[in-house]
Amino acid sequence: MSSPIRVGLMGLNRNTSTSNQVPGLWATKTHLPYILASPKFKLIAVCNSTIESSQTAIKNHNLGPEVAAYGSPEDLAKDPNVDMVIISVMVGKHYMLAKPALLAGKDIFVEWPLGASTAEAEEMAGLAKEHGCKTIVGLQARASPLIIKIKDLISSGKIGKVLSSTVISSFGGLPPGGMWPTGAEYYLDINSGGTPLSIFFGHFLDSFVHVLGDFKVLKSSMRTDYPLVDIVDMSGNVLQKDYRKTTPDGIQILGTLESGASASIAYYTATNPSIDGTGVRWMITGTKGQIEVTTPESQWQMGPPGTVLKARLGRGAEIETIDFEDLVEVKEVNERVFPAVNTARQYEAFVEGRTRDFPDFEAAVKTHKLLDRVKEEAGW
Amino acid sequence: MSSPIRVGLMGLNRNTSTSNQVPGLWATKTHLPYILASPKFKLIAVCNSTIESSQTAIKNHNLGPEVAAYGSPEDLAKDPNVDMVIISVMVGKHYMLAKPALLAGKDIFVEWPLGASTAEAEEMAGLAKEHGCKTIVGLQARASPLIIKIKDLISSGKIGKVLSSTVISSFGGLPPGGMWPTGAEYYLDINSGGTPLSIFFGHFLDSFVHVLGDFKVLKSSMRTDYPLVDIVDMSGNVLQKDYRKTTPDGIQILGTLESGASASIAYYTATNPSIDGTGVRWMITGTKGQIEVTTPESQWQMGPPGTVLKARLGRGAEIETIDFEDLVEVKEVNERVFPAVNTARQYEAFVEGRTRDFPDFEAAVKTHKLLDRVKEEAGW
Repeated sequence: MSSPIRVGLMGLNRNTSTSNQVPGLWATKTHLPYILASPKFKLIAVCNSTIESSQTAIKNHNLGPEVAAYGSPEDLAKDPNVDMVIISVMVGKHYMLAKPALLAGKDIFVEWPLGASTAEAEEMAGLAKEHGCKTIVGLQARASPLIIKIKDLISSGKIGKVLSSTVISSFGGLPPGGMWPTGAEYYLDINSGGTPLSIFFGHFLDSFVHVLGDFKVLKSSMRTDYPLVDIVDMSGNVLQKDYRKTTPDGIQILGTLESGASASIAYYTATNPSIDGTGVRWMITGTKGQIEVTTPESQWQMGPPGTVLKARLGRGAEIETIDFEDLVEVKEVNERVFPAVNTARQYEAFVEGRTRDFPDFEAAVKTHKLLDRVKEEAGW
Repeated sequence: MSSPIRVGLMGLNRNTSTSNQVPGLWATKTHLPYILASPKFKLIAVCNSTIESSQTAIKNHNLGPEVAAYGSPEDLAKDPNVDMVIISVMVGKHYMLAKPALLAGKDIFVEWPLGASTAEAEEMAGLAKEHGCKTIVGLQARASPLIIKIKDLISSGKIGKVLSSTVISSFGGLPPGGMWPTGAEYYLDINSGGTPLSIFFGHFLDSFVHVLGDFKVLKSSMRTDYPLVDIVDMSGNVLQKDYRKTTPDGIQILGTLESGASASIAYYTATNPSIDGTGVRWMITGTKGQIEVTTPESQWQMGPPGTVLKARLGRGAEIETIDFEDLVEVKEVNERVFPAVNTARQYEAFVEGRTRDFPDFEAAVKTHKLLDRVKEEAGW
């Protein structure tokens, strides 16, 4: 690997507004500040949909004249100085933006979901393998101290053999229906690939199997509780009434893991904050002890503040609150905060070769397939 | 109905020991004190397996010489003064003890599970119908103020239309494996009819569908985590090592209710008290609000102290802790306490004709069939 790794970023917003409805905000909030802060990476190119847009972004973010501005993924891929391409745009464009970089043998970071379909994800994984590209997919919870700690607790044997795991979670933190911002309609369309199933639920499911292993038997059910929503602009004006939502508001799965343990996960939607004050409630029960994670209603993968990890480590042991933020981390990670910090941790895991702590394309394809299975088993 | 209702009781223990391992304790702790206290009922006969045993029980419980002692269910059934027969014995004997009473047209209270199989339960329900017997089955949670309050909250419309319900519960309050008292081996045998599935889980499932309606689609999984247990005597001496347990330690179901709502229930076994300090955690989510019930690790149907009912009654409303013990009840119910009180409430509901609040044989057959479905769908 060249040092620093020279990156080209796709998906930076043109201006520096922090409204939640600005496309490109995720790249601006997470990828950009880490890349700029880290001595291990160097931003050398920006690639938006036009050269002019890239130039505007470079100017507004004060990236300096030495950063190249590209207007097509092919042009970015042709730049011999670019070691790694970062793609942080809506999922429908991942495949077309990633393909030139993969063909050119670039290393690549693609946000989750990897593809708009499993077929796209598989093709990307095939290209990466063929062209020797190192890959990262933005399932960033794997890099979080929480997940690393849970994996360590389980492998320590202190809770014994895992026999079961149960999860209840609200789909909170996202509007429960009724109104939806224009520009994000893909989230309402089950065929878009970027849905509550693949994103909100998918991030958690990826952590679940990362910690506990794959499903042997899986049964599922999904339901749309709010099939009609109004599309609104940034001021709340209704642009389209009764837009047809085809994505689920409830997802439930159960089954048996390859390890033999039982698993049950239920995600539901409420129109108020959840009554137990909890987003995810995840219990892992072993022959000797038990682990419980509770989070506020937020995005699981971003490691929301207020997340609590408790464990009973051994039969008859007291319940402890486990400090999972005790990992020693580098300055450029410590400077990041929610919701950006776990993405920064993925870059660190990549550089340090801690392959357990970030998924490559192959791992992401597995999670894509698991989500397909959830959908199929539910009869969707 | 005659007033008072003259009852014959089957299943009273001979002596008045309160050790948990004495057969007949349930009748002694629950049915007997209520019957003796209530002006609406009068105990006129005891029927154990021999006349001598009945006489000893009558003497030790100071029931008085006017109470008749019988040694067979046929003899009890022939007593023209007996209006109602109460059967509180292990489930394997329910059918043979109930049949003579049903043929004689007696009203009848049978503890849950009604039959050792659905076929037995159906035959009993058929006989009751044919012979005009009024029936009660000991699914006593239906008579509890908690369930009555939850049903009232839902029918008030304050949480809107119910869209989903999720439950996580430990099988706590029962030994998780390793040791099991002699005389209660039936609980370890999936074919006995009196198992963690039918009793511990079945009581809750009955409440669940009583409140939310039946399952349209149901998927399930069951698992035995601890297949071998040691049978011990009352002093803890091992009488039989590695007794084969065929009952589940984990039961998970999911599906869609007839109402269209999603449902997910996961029961798991831990070898320690549950890490969230909770037995049942039951959430019911509507379009406008939400209900949460939490109990300590105990027997759901008995209404354990420490049960908390919270609700958010309307969009944007505050979360309230709901007082569900505010029902005005008669003295002979108020004098009963956990674990006996809900059984007393069933008798009151019966006398008052509140048929919603206690299940008859027909209702119990439905719950038997639902449990069969859970088993079948799990591939057991």
